[in-house]
Amino acid sequence: MNADRLRQQIEFLLEMDKLKSVLRRTYVLGTDRRENSAEHSWHLAVMALLLAEHASAPVDVLRVLKMLLVHDIVEIDAGDTYVYDIQTNKAANESAAADRIFGLLPADQRDEMRELWEEFEARETSEARFAAALDRLMPMLHNSHAQGRSWREHGITADQVLARNAHIADGSPDLWEYAESMIRDAVAQGYLAPGRNET
Amino acid sequence: MNADRLRQQIEFLLEMDKLKSVLRRTYVLGTDRRENSAEHSWHLAVMALLLAEHASAPVDVLRVLKMLLVHDIVEIDAGDTYVYDIQTNKAANESAAADRIFGLLPADQRDEMRELWEEFEARETSEARFAAALDRLMPMLHNSHAQGRSWREHGITADQVLARNAHIADGSPDLWEYAESMIRDAVAQGYLAPGRNET
Repeated sequence: MNADRLRQQIEFLLEMDKLKSVLRRTYVLGTDRRENSAEHSWHLAVMALLLAEHASAPVDVLRVLKMLLVHDIVEIDAGDTYVYDIQTNKAANESAAADRIFGLLPADQRDEMRELWEEFEARETSEARFAAALDRLMPMLHNSHAQGRSWREHGITADQVLARNAHIADGSPDLWEYAESMIRDAVAQGYLAPGRNET
Repeated sequence: MNADRLRQQIEFLLEMDKLKSVLRRTYVLGTDRRENSAEHSWHLAVMALLLAEHASAPVDVLRVLKMLLVHDIVEIDAGDTYVYDIQTNKAANESAAADRIFGLLPADQRDEMRELWEEFEARETSEARFAAALDRLMPMLHNSHAQGRSWREHGITADQVLARNAHIADGSPDLWEYAESMIRDAVAQGYLAPGRNET
């Protein structure tokens, strides 16, 4: 056993506890508690296991899982960015966070984690496109089963939801079809305003 | 797309939100909030990615991840059982929970999830032994970095910790060596009483 290597790995794992305190805009269903990024990451990983058959191209499920498990770790330093917000320094902040946090690991694992995160962000591989589709679909599921709560709290409209989530189709046309149907239902039920100029 | 199949998968995924409200005895580090089983499952999955090299035998990491992602799902109905408690109906309660919860899925995925959970519980494969080792090591890490908080709250002693966690050695002798050293340190620092008759 390389004791120094294990010590670095354990230090990184203890640091991971902080992701459990990074809050997202979505609420855990049936509660008034905002979801944190650690439990969200678990939820996406389970989602990937079950929905991989809907990916637009065959995917390496292990790689999808790895990306989903690490995709939000940079939020420990950079915080969660609401998908409908524009934050100018997001890329620089997250890159600095990746330097520090992944830098806690032995060099080979630091590089592997960094590559997984960058692959996820770039959405160029089939695995990254599918993983990103799940990351976008999940909050829509949450919202549509919570009477559009976080959409309404932040004044989000259907045209915004359509525009910001359309890349779900790159990862899975089937899931995008499902998502579009959810959006239509949410508008019909009054959980989601149709557009900025139509409310 | 098989719409009925997708509907069942989505229904299961929405049900998964309930694992975010199942509380464990451990606390999120640096907080007064008890950890839930969803974020715990994420933490273990990241742990598996990083520590697989310490497994006692080469492991299929994808299978380890799958088991860790689903290992606590039965707690949605059966609740979390503290590792130091003896609960007589645990097996029956968890089996009924598995019937109901995995039963939400299409039959092939119901069976796959059930098999993963049973494999984890049986600890007979290399993957299950390693996954179980991580599941036992993590709360020890939490406790030893929180002045033994949940050990002290529940009057747990070092002989109990040694007895209930010794199977870590089956999954990873290296991690068990590390764990034993943590236990010795916790006793030396007064975070953990040495034994029932020695306190």
